[in-house]
Amino acid sequence: MTFSGFDHVILLAHGSTDPLWKLPFEIIYEKIVSASPREKCSLAYMELSEPSLKSTINALDASVKKVAVLPLFFSVGRHLRHDVPAMIKDLQRDDLSIELLAPIGDDDRIQKAMVDAVKGHLGETQ
Amino acid sequence: MTFSGFDHVILLAHGSTDPLWKLPFEIIYEKIVSASPREKCSLAYMELSEPSLKSTINALDASVKKVAVLPLFFSVGRHLRHDVPAMIKDLQRDDLSIELLAPIGDDDRIQKAMVDAVKGHLGETQ
Repeated sequence: MTFSGFDHVILLAHGSTDPLWKLPFEIIYEKIVSASPREKCSLAYMELSEPSLKSTINALDASVKKVAVLPLFFSVGRHLRHDVPAMIKDLQRDDLSIELLAPIGDDDRIQKAMVDAVKGHLGETQ
Repeated sequence: MTFSGFDHVILLAHGSTDPLWKLPFEIIYEKIVSASPREKCSLAYMELSEPSLKSTINALDASVKKVAVLPLFFSVGRHLRHDVPAMIKDLQRDDLSIELLAPIGDDDRIQKAMVDAVKGHLGETQ
């Protein structure tokens, strides 16, 4: 499952009323933008935390035409099946395509890393 | 952040009323037990889905003395700060130590994989 060629990727986390909850996402975001141009990647929250998906999309540079929304979720539930597609439908414009990707937990690279992490905890050779 | 030497790792996902939600976790679990002995790794859910953490721990072989609970979460919120530690406290026994690990999203291997995934979506060389 490899997509490519988007102008911009928005990492979409769930959001929480817990102020500490955002920190690991911010750390991951900083790692990503230390490896990719910062203007090509944003971090947004589906609910409860700011910035929202809407404000993030509205703040994109006019030159951005093709956006991917990459959910930082392990699985697809009601949010990714209904809520986020509805948000994206409202935010699509003639001059801006927005594609909802599969959740990052589906990515082969993440799954391989999870297998390696469990082997590490069991003290198995990697 | 590398732990090792546990007899058994329990992958702990959130759980959902959505029956389709469990599927990706089951796929990840099957990948893990194709690489590690099946008797050393279980998949459990914090709430709403079965099997529960309690039933999973109660079903462990008596030879298991040192269990790690590895949350399949990206971040620590109320659940991992309060609910799961309280569950674990109740399930600890003199002959069974249960350690709650940091969520898998904190693992360097997962974070590296997330960086690579975003670079892939942007069409950047990896």
